[in-house]
Amino acid sequence: MSLDWLSAPCAQPDTALAEAARAHQLQLTKPPGSLGMLEALAIQLASLQHTPRPAVERVWISVFAGDHGVADEGVSAFPQVVTGEMVRNFATGGAAISVLARSLAATLDVVNLGTVNDPGEIPGVRRAIIAPSTANFCLAPAMTVAQFDAALSVGAESARSAKAAGAQLFIGGEMGIANTTSAAAVASALLDEPPSVLAGAGTGLNAEGIRHKVSVLERALAQHAGATTALEQLRCLGGFEIAALVGAYIAAAQTGLPVLVDGFITTTAALAAVMINPDVRPWLLFAHRSKEHGHARLLQALNAEPVLDLGLRLGEASGAATAVPLLRLACALHNGMATFEQAGVSTS
Amino acid sequence: MSLDWLSAPCAQPDTALAEAARAHQLQLTKPPGSLGMLEALAIQLASLQHTPRPAVERVWISVFAGDHGVADEGVSAFPQVVTGEMVRNFATGGAAISVLARSLAATLDVVNLGTVNDPGEIPGVRRAIIAPSTANFCLAPAMTVAQFDAALSVGAESARSAKAAGAQLFIGGEMGIANTTSAAAVASALLDEPPSVLAGAGTGLNAEGIRHKVSVLERALAQHAGATTALEQLRCLGGFEIAALVGAYIAAAQTGLPVLVDGFITTTAALAAVMINPDVRPWLLFAHRSKEHGHARLLQALNAEPVLDLGLRLGEASGAATAVPLLRLACALHNGMATFEQAGVSTS
Repeated sequence: MSLDWLSAPCAQPDTALAEAARAHQLQLTKPPGSLGMLEALAIQLASLQHTPRPAVERVWISVFAGDHGVADEGVSAFPQVVTGEMVRNFATGGAAISVLARSLAATLDVVNLGTVNDPGEIPGVRRAIIAPSTANFCLAPAMTVAQFDAALSVGAESARSAKAAGAQLFIGGEMGIANTTSAAAVASALLDEPPSVLAGAGTGLNAEGIRHKVSVLERALAQHAGATTALEQLRCLGGFEIAALVGAYIAAAQTGLPVLVDGFITTTAALAAVMINPDVRPWLLFAHRSKEHGHARLLQALNAEPVLDLGLRLGEASGAATAVPLLRLACALHNGMATFEQAGVSTS
Repeated sequence: MSLDWLSAPCAQPDTALAEAARAHQLQLTKPPGSLGMLEALAIQLASLQHTPRPAVERVWISVFAGDHGVADEGVSAFPQVVTGEMVRNFATGGAAISVLARSLAATLDVVNLGTVNDPGEIPGVRRAIIAPSTANFCLAPAMTVAQFDAALSVGAESARSAKAAGAQLFIGGEMGIANTTSAAAVASALLDEPPSVLAGAGTGLNAEGIRHKVSVLERALAQHAGATTALEQLRCLGGFEIAALVGAYIAAAQTGLPVLVDGFITTTAALAAVMINPDVRPWLLFAHRSKEHGHARLLQALNAEPVLDLGLRLGEASGAATAVPLLRLACALHNGMATFEQAGVSTS
């Protein structure tokens, strides 16, 4: 299978509609600029959705799950069986993202790309099993070329399904024990930064655990020093769910579907997507500043200004889901407020 | 009328329920603490609402409007007629808070305490007219004792009505041309800080306008240097709507109704309320960090950690309303997530 689709053109934001939305905001009955980021979000969504009346009522959340060979190195506070167990929890409604999706009336698309502890067929879970796990990237590339292609395509399918279903916003999430280690490895390679800048506590490592994680990352980066393109770095150091997110973000931008990026792992995927296809960048909104150590550096690299800063570090798309109501209110204000003229309110 | 009610005891948060809620959070299928402030909000609401299942479905928003004599000093970017015009806009649905209240299915209680440009009887507006405006506090106390008592009581009535209607959260908002000047004066006096620390751009002053505002504040503080209690400082330098907010916050705490504080002006009222009756403090949640210059100092004085930081500076309770969905999601997660045991997810 060819990876040419990754560099196919993205849809274009409508700059004239952005200008019109900006002018409209100045007519609304409030001091200019006084709704801060809520104004900026409405303007950006108008431009991306090609409409003077932006909306994010129909939200699609894809959560990609996959296991990581590097878990063998003892880099997580939780055992590897949890990935498969959580896939079931997503589908049966008990996980954070399940509760959030229900609260938002969002579509929740759970995709199992391969877990060591296979939960089997579960209603509400799309099985797209590539392998029980990636390889331990301290020893070998995490994915073969075929596995990597497959993961990217699975993600793209989710984004295209979202667009076909009429979604107005795409959110990607992830689950995979040890995936902050994989994301930190990818981010270190993409940014050419030492792993200490990107490695954090994940699900709850202490300082000693983080030091060990950094030493694992140093070995992995040395092992794959020959991987010099974003694609090769992603294949050698990423995970099935991280590659799926990259495929999803690129396909979303290509089909003209705005993306709300979640936390540390998804922002790593977003950075990879932008390095592979720079036209993806305008389609990305950033939900929150994660408490995970490396996120700040990633946001800086993407020049991203997230909506929330709540000390979240759960993943699963939970931070992005939490920001959805603010996007909805931004649209409601943009579409529903009276202008000075309509309301008979003086400006001078 | 006596002001003794202001120091009557407040309801008590339930510390045992707070402990139980904290323990419950540790059982939910997520790394401990990974939902950050969303966990803290649910725990605090459980404690304040005296229930293991906190909720903020029924939200009451009171917006208090009043004009300020100090507008004569040329301290606002907007003309004084706007206060009355905006009262009409609140009621007819075109203002930011109208749109937000509608989106949240919240009760919107608009209270006119007195505007120079009297909009008259308007359906949906409670007329509680004290005077067309406060006095110019550069020359005289802003309110007489009788006016001050009346304003405090009007606010308390709103909070008690909210409680009687079954509200689970009280939000106060304000509208009044020149009221960032009044709030900065009150805050300067309460904190014994120079006005330059508290004065900001309000609805849109430039640097020269802010310098003029500071000089007006310096004159006002010198004029009322004899006011040494929080109550007297509030009477001499406040506004009808600011006093109403103070009365509302104290009454809410007394009736056991949690409060979500909005921005700069409401946080000034919150500080006054806490200085008048310290037991109010546990009942206050803080919605956002306003872009208005003095807000950071007020939040620091109250040791408050707001939920949002979106560069908002509109007032009207708009920042508090914007934070409501996050409180709702915090409750939904607390009440709706599965425990590790229920979901069969491993912890070690």
